[in-house]
Amino acid sequence: MKTPETLLLNQEQIKSLITMKEVVEIVDRTSKDLGVGKTINPTKVLLDLGETAAYPPYSGFMNAMPAYIGWEDSAGIKWAGGFLGERKALGFPYITAMILLIDPKLGFFRAAMDGAYITNMRTGAQTASALKYLVNKKKIKLGLYGAGMQGHTQTEAISVLFDIDELRVYDVNRQASEKFAQDMKDVVKGKIIIADKPEDAAQGDVIVCVTQSKDKFLKNEWIKPGTVVFPMGSYQECDDEFILSADKIIVDCIGQVLHRGALRGLVEEKKLSEKNITCTIGEMAAGLKEERIQKNERILCLPIGTGAMDVAVATAVYNKAVEKSIGVKFAFV
Amino acid sequence: MKTPETLLLNQEQIKSLITMKEVVEIVDRTSKDLGVGKTINPTKVLLDLGETAAYPPYSGFMNAMPAYIGWEDSAGIKWAGGFLGERKALGFPYITAMILLIDPKLGFFRAAMDGAYITNMRTGAQTASALKYLVNKKKIKLGLYGAGMQGHTQTEAISVLFDIDELRVYDVNRQASEKFAQDMKDVVKGKIIIADKPEDAAQGDVIVCVTQSKDKFLKNEWIKPGTVVFPMGSYQECDDEFILSADKIIVDCIGQVLHRGALRGLVEEKKLSEKNITCTIGEMAAGLKEERIQKNERILCLPIGTGAMDVAVATAVYNKAVEKSIGVKFAFV
Repeated sequence: MKTPETLLLNQEQIKSLITMKEVVEIVDRTSKDLGVGKTINPTKVLLDLGETAAYPPYSGFMNAMPAYIGWEDSAGIKWAGGFLGERKALGFPYITAMILLIDPKLGFFRAAMDGAYITNMRTGAQTASALKYLVNKKKIKLGLYGAGMQGHTQTEAISVLFDIDELRVYDVNRQASEKFAQDMKDVVKGKIIIADKPEDAAQGDVIVCVTQSKDKFLKNEWIKPGTVVFPMGSYQECDDEFILSADKIIVDCIGQVLHRGALRGLVEEKKLSEKNITCTIGEMAAGLKEERIQKNERILCLPIGTGAMDVAVATAVYNKAVEKSIGVKFAFV
Repeated sequence: MKTPETLLLNQEQIKSLITMKEVVEIVDRTSKDLGVGKTINPTKVLLDLGETAAYPPYSGFMNAMPAYIGWEDSAGIKWAGGFLGERKALGFPYITAMILLIDPKLGFFRAAMDGAYITNMRTGAQTASALKYLVNKKKIKLGLYGAGMQGHTQTEAISVLFDIDELRVYDVNRQASEKFAQDMKDVVKGKIIIADKPEDAAQGDVIVCVTQSKDKFLKNEWIKPGTVVFPMGSYQECDDEFILSADKIIVDCIGQVLHRGALRGLVEEKKLSEKNITCTIGEMAAGLKEERIQKNERILCLPIGTGAMDVAVATAVYNKAVEKSIGVKFAFV
């Protein structure tokens, strides 16, 4: 027996093989599996290439995110990061990523594929899946900060499970908001309102932030009771007051959320710790916890992103590619 | 500008592109770079697929090992592991691995290549490079446990920098020792002696263990003053007495060595800690520490393996492949 060849899939092929509806289902199922411990997601390891480190001198980072997916019996890794600086100046998207899949029993490399498209899709799907367990209604109003790629995928994913009755969008670049409104007019059932001022988008049942802002622009006083807030950026988007006064903090992965994104600063200042985290999305998905929002509550939800979601989606893409004989094979060994 | 394509390299191509002499030089240079902090090697992250975990039920693991190499200005990751069980029964090698390289400034994926061959080569080279700073002579006597793939590459790498005057080899499978003696007769300058009993191989200036033994077979009383011992297996090969009485413990990466391989058990039992580690190989290579063996000393050296070495060697392979137009290009994005 020879080592089986590895299937290579590019971004266009991946796009043709999976829909947002399927990604939302896969993410939801993987969430449940994480909740009951059947999916294994070690804490990601960061290679800082100058995003925050003084050396090396580049404006980027890479995260290594391996996982084993119980319900698919698959293992893999996403190596993904974000780069600004010269990459941005040249007009390339922020995210760069590759996903590798192995046979978890024999160790053969089954596939190598682009990871950027799956990253965007699963990040949207994570919000949608978490919302399933946090709100009580089918029709929701949404406030959105950031009208870029992830603004689109967040909106698409939420619309798989909910009717978006009204969407208020704010972006520092108004043209981006206008393009977003045009692109999303068939996805959003209700009206899309372009906010002139940041505070005008802070309305609705759900607020999603997908910005690269390094400012804490989302103010505590803007956020009304009955709201779930998802700050999805890599930096801190909410002000400290809101984070410290939120009634519940729900996360995807406790180990990760303490060291990256919205909570990092407050954890370093010792104003927040693991004790302040209410539960994981996986525990809600698995039915182990019930945390649906009450009228008087404000919930902070942080699906910062797990490799498990990427590997789970990539496995579904791989299975479909094999079924449809899509992709090129390469013998690495 | 389009995203540049990714170069794919298979094991045969990699073999044709790099020699052990070059690997030893690259490893040595990367060691120095680690010692002065110009190469960044975050602690590897383990995905246990049943090697020691109760779930999932497979006899394998995968380690994610990202690194930035200062002297090459390159970044990459090796995702590598070992599988026994059915993989072994089917006759496949223990190690399975893939290496990805990126442009550290722009985040483009430069290459995807087999990682198993480079793993074997750099593991041998790590021992050779460390020995450069630990012994005083050019002619050495070597005791070797394990006559498999890694036994070969350890011997080849050491013979790049030293004349092996005598080599005593022990393997639980005598046929493996006989094949080794045949394969290595031109690499080893002196005599190769096949040991009938384990203790007969515990002689020489240097003892290298590259076994998959889960027993602590190497006994304290066998190891004479003036000996450097390299237990390179994933499990514990030396008995506790030797580890606890060694005059110096020298490692490649303090963070890793406490959690895997020879020291793990004693660290868990709190009989050993970071305080017992003399220095890193990188510090010796960079000239920051001088720890050459004295006649009355016994040194334990643990180059457990860093992603930095893999990424550094893979970068050299990639540069040569580009120069010689070897490999296939694939557009992932």
